[in-house]
Amino acid sequence: MENFVFHNATKIIFGKGTEEKVGEETVRYSKKVLLHYGQGSIKRIGLYDRVVKSLKEAGVAFIELGGVQPNPRLELVERGIKICRKENIGFILAVGGGSVIDSAKAIAVGVPYDGHVWDFFEKKAEPQAALPVGVVLTIPAAGSESSASAVITNEVGPYKRGMYSLLLRPKFAIMNPEITFSLSPYQTACGIADMMAHVMERYFTPTKNVELTDRLCEATLRTIIHNAPIVLTEPKNYDARAEIMWASTIAHNDLLSTGRVGDWATHAIEHELSALYDIPHGAGLAILFPCWMRYVYKRDVKRFAQFAHRVWGVEVELRNLEETALKGIKRLKTFFRSIGLPTSLKEADIPDDRLEEMAEKATWAGPIGNFVKLKKEDVLQIYKMACG
Amino acid sequence: MENFVFHNATKIIFGKGTEEKVGEETVRYSKKVLLHYGQGSIKRIGLYDRVVKSLKEAGVAFIELGGVQPNPRLELVERGIKICRKENIGFILAVGGGSVIDSAKAIAVGVPYDGHVWDFFEKKAEPQAALPVGVVLTIPAAGSESSASAVITNEVGPYKRGMYSLLLRPKFAIMNPEITFSLSPYQTACGIADMMAHVMERYFTPTKNVELTDRLCEATLRTIIHNAPIVLTEPKNYDARAEIMWASTIAHNDLLSTGRVGDWATHAIEHELSALYDIPHGAGLAILFPCWMRYVYKRDVKRFAQFAHRVWGVEVELRNLEETALKGIKRLKTFFRSIGLPTSLKEADIPDDRLEEMAEKATWAGPIGNFVKLKKEDVLQIYKMACG
Repeated sequence: MENFVFHNATKIIFGKGTEEKVGEETVRYSKKVLLHYGQGSIKRIGLYDRVVKSLKEAGVAFIELGGVQPNPRLELVERGIKICRKENIGFILAVGGGSVIDSAKAIAVGVPYDGHVWDFFEKKAEPQAALPVGVVLTIPAAGSESSASAVITNEVGPYKRGMYSLLLRPKFAIMNPEITFSLSPYQTACGIADMMAHVMERYFTPTKNVELTDRLCEATLRTIIHNAPIVLTEPKNYDARAEIMWASTIAHNDLLSTGRVGDWATHAIEHELSALYDIPHGAGLAILFPCWMRYVYKRDVKRFAQFAHRVWGVEVELRNLEETALKGIKRLKTFFRSIGLPTSLKEADIPDDRLEEMAEKATWAGPIGNFVKLKKEDVLQIYKMACG
Repeated sequence: MENFVFHNATKIIFGKGTEEKVGEETVRYSKKVLLHYGQGSIKRIGLYDRVVKSLKEAGVAFIELGGVQPNPRLELVERGIKICRKENIGFILAVGGGSVIDSAKAIAVGVPYDGHVWDFFEKKAEPQAALPVGVVLTIPAAGSESSASAVITNEVGPYKRGMYSLLLRPKFAIMNPEITFSLSPYQTACGIADMMAHVMERYFTPTKNVELTDRLCEATLRTIIHNAPIVLTEPKNYDARAEIMWASTIAHNDLLSTGRVGDWATHAIEHELSALYDIPHGAGLAILFPCWMRYVYKRDVKRFAQFAHRVWGVEVELRNLEETALKGIKRLKTFFRSIGLPTSLKEADIPDDRLEEMAEKATWAGPIGNFVKLKKEDVLQIYKMACG
């Protein structure tokens, strides 16, 4: 086990009706906030009205900035920063999924920074301060509601880049599983692939002797796998939605990283895909993760056999652990297909003519991944395996 | 799943050599601290010197209060409160195990309170403020390093009582598994029973549909069970000590309580035992938990069968789930015996002439437990089952 620091102070407020507490939680930080959201689905489901009512009752004034798109754009972040500075905003309330939260986080670190916020995403600077951010979560997927990371797409490129700073952890996250009842099966499935990927990026580690976190990862994956078909066939099943929602946070709040190095190559490989083709992050991960696995599993067949056995219930064939390992990867791919996700670029209508360009961009800062270090050529092979 | 709020801001600093960071972590809060510890073992293992060096290097002045005993006493808490007030102390640094930390927490809430600190333990008052507390952990057991609770023994009675307040969560916990190398096998085993009990108190819940936390509980228990014999036969095995140490925190940082009601009757039943006979809390729990289980398992045989199967690997006998359930309880008892713990009052040299008195005290505030509500008569039966 590696030395680690684990510090996650996000206050989770979970359950039915919890969005009514957003006013009292927000007013602890500021009486003037930026209300940040996406394409308007929060208005259709009535959440916007409930949030606004709660803010008003708590005496919180707000300025709105909607319009966050999936794969959130730098341009809107820049606009948000200008508004916050001009209006002297003290807090950003993100009402939405990972894209809205990530956009809010980027605005939050951009406001007090003299340079351009993109510097943080290019690792040219480290943030020293940030506005506080709060969340009302609508999509269980990205785990951004208590994570210390944010991913933004710069339209000039296009480049999709992430940053990590403890300043990015939201102060609170309000999570009502009922709000997720209206998610489409495809949105739900993309979220499931995203949260599973967060666990798997941590699970496939070069660190030895990480039994507790291995088992916590397996517990989280099994819960997601068990509840996924339930929420897809019974979208209003509160208990299954609650399991999925809480699992999405646990998957990415850094508990499952304690004492171990994560891999994270597949995230980098996917980011190029969704930057170029605007495919949902979760769908891209569903295509790429099994390919990455087949490319790297020989580095630690026992770990992949453990994954097959403990997560998928595959019987361990001691005389042929490789077979056991490969069965686990196959089960993952079959699972993604069973919940309606694409498992090849072809199925997602993505052409194969820019693989080289994506492989180049994915490795812009050098080899990626920690389980196995991947160079441009390796990444290109993985994209080719993904073609279908 | 029940609605919940989960907020744990304790900063965990885990790994080799981490005690050297105690000065820099402490000085964030105060330049004048109370250095609180136990019977001097921290001096024998050289930890005291390293802590003092780090404090001095950070420019932190300190006043010492050693002498905390297992089952920490109210009298020393009162002395600590007086010292802190007189010396204008701004922070309490607990270097030790659960007893030292609990004593520090009680001092921390007592200092700013006008009444007597015992009021909090008798539920006559709720703390409104507390001095900040930091921890250098020496014994993985109580989980007090990031919990919101403290247990103190009032010599006049004697009464052992707990309190819970978010103000009690330590600001940081420094955890170096190497420091636990010198724990005796008996201390180690008592700690293991204590942390397992913390998970089991949460596991045996009346709440339905709590799959994720069920599985996280099982993951934690399996890790403890697997590593317990390793740390007992190889006390300097860093990786096994690290698993046990991190598991002890996870067992009691409230993550495993999210969305579910815990039971906690066995803790209350044990407190009377250790208040009267000064037996280690973990040893008392090892005696009592299997008895409690046999007394209550019929309330939810499926949950006990799940415990047997998922935690202990007992094959599920679908035509006789009761048999499966009972096998799990038996496995737990056998495990406690295998790590050198007593499994009856007789083995612990505790007489059977004050069972009635203990049952009376344990239920002083009404029935205890949530999985099953236990009255005085029930508790008396459990004590009788424990006689051996």
